[in-house]
Amino acid sequence: MEKIISSKNERVKQWSKLKNKKGRNKYNQYILESWHLVSEAINAQQHVNIILTTEKQFEFHKEALDNFAGELIEISDEVAKTLGSTSTPQGIFGVVDLPKQDSFKAEDMNGAWLLLDQIQDPGNIGTMVRTADAAGMTGVIFGDGTSSQYNPKVLRAMQGSQFHLKIIEGDLLNWIEKFESNDVPVYGTELNPQAVSYTDIAASDSFALVMGNEGNGMQAKILDRTTKNLYIPIKGQAESLNVAIAAGILMFNLKK
Amino acid sequence: MEKIISSKNERVKQWSKLKNKKGRNKYNQYILESWHLVSEAINAQQHVNIILTTEKQFEFHKEALDNFAGELIEISDEVAKTLGSTSTPQGIFGVVDLPKQDSFKAEDMNGAWLLLDQIQDPGNIGTMVRTADAAGMTGVIFGDGTSSQYNPKVLRAMQGSQFHLKIIEGDLLNWIEKFESNDVPVYGTELNPQAVSYTDIAASDSFALVMGNEGNGMQAKILDRTTKNLYIPIKGQAESLNVAIAAGILMFNLKK
Repeated sequence: MEKIISSKNERVKQWSKLKNKKGRNKYNQYILESWHLVSEAINAQQHVNIILTTEKQFEFHKEALDNFAGELIEISDEVAKTLGSTSTPQGIFGVVDLPKQDSFKAEDMNGAWLLLDQIQDPGNIGTMVRTADAAGMTGVIFGDGTSSQYNPKVLRAMQGSQFHLKIIEGDLLNWIEKFESNDVPVYGTELNPQAVSYTDIAASDSFALVMGNEGNGMQAKILDRTTKNLYIPIKGQAESLNVAIAAGILMFNLKK
Repeated sequence: MEKIISSKNERVKQWSKLKNKKGRNKYNQYILESWHLVSEAINAQQHVNIILTTEKQFEFHKEALDNFAGELIEISDEVAKTLGSTSTPQGIFGVVDLPKQDSFKAEDMNGAWLLLDQIQDPGNIGTMVRTADAAGMTGVIFGDGTSSQYNPKVLRAMQGSQFHLKIIEGDLLNWIEKFESNDVPVYGTELNPQAVSYTDIAASDSFALVMGNEGNGMQAKILDRTTKNLYIPIKGQAESLNVAIAAGILMFNLKK
């Protein structure tokens, strides 16, 4: 097994660039951290080309790693620190091809979908994807301006749920048009008691729910294009709910 | 107005210690960061003894600060960095007396309460307190082993909701006994489909809901002492929900 010790190694520098959008687009790959996520990616038939592992992690997962068909490279703790996105990385990484975006047709846009409109915080995004998975949603659409699904912090917070759902990136207005042409209701969300309380909507298997930016909410041009806009009645004195909490309450109540 | 420039100043060293439990217990005070929280504390009749402010923040809030009855001290950006809990602190702090814990009697333990059993992550704790406020809960009990309500990261995440609710710290088993003697049902939570689905519980104004540690769930000795244990049915392939998301779904569905 090849071994890379120095974080100044040219390949390490290249993998490190996969933590950023520019690098991912250049090499058409992303980097996935932790055995849990790497093994979920392999199980989900993703193209994991290379596994990078410290000696210690290799010993832990020897049996599974011996069966890995791609390139297996041992890395030092120093290299693991360079590639990791936490101060104490586990020490195992996968270098994965960016999947081709499935070509969804208008008629595919059925079921229950979560749409993210310019959500910024990786923890919120990851938690919402994980919650969408738990709620039995069909998929999640990352609208333009939302942090990337391949951002290392988003990857960590999704905990592998991205492999259990359909994930799309793109212009939300385009997708909303497709839902509406299929008679799938599109629910916006706003902090506005003039909107419809979510408790007045019957649970169903087919709807699209849009969550907006943490500070500014949904973009006006998207609020204008929804079937209905919902709000969560606030009973106490809190000014608002965290966006991921609001998404959790809505998905678990709207999804049959 | 007195001005403190150096973070080596003895008073700055003392205030800095208020970020830790040992320092808070020694001086019987805590430190609150940001104008939003300091002004909420003043409005909630908390004993804000000292306000520390950079020149810039003083200009922003001059009118309100001129009416402040306690000690007002100007601090340098360097001191603000030392006292702050983020890399770019806003630059305004309050030094507040630890409130005496209200002496709740058994007969006071009515209404809807959230109980935190060894919850570790300050963001989760703060988000749960904020969500409890929004759901119209009566109060939150921080069980032994849960991060302190005066931890700077918990304070930040609560966003002032601690001033809108009753907050108690202590041994959960003691408080559970008091709820049960008042016929208030105590609902534990577990990742166990043998438990009762939360959808089978009618919404009410009087219950106690216990949320457990992020990794280990509730302590067995507490699960044993509840009226019923609830779970949230998971429809997809996610292994679990984030504890704050689960608490949000439960509070918004159980609280009438």
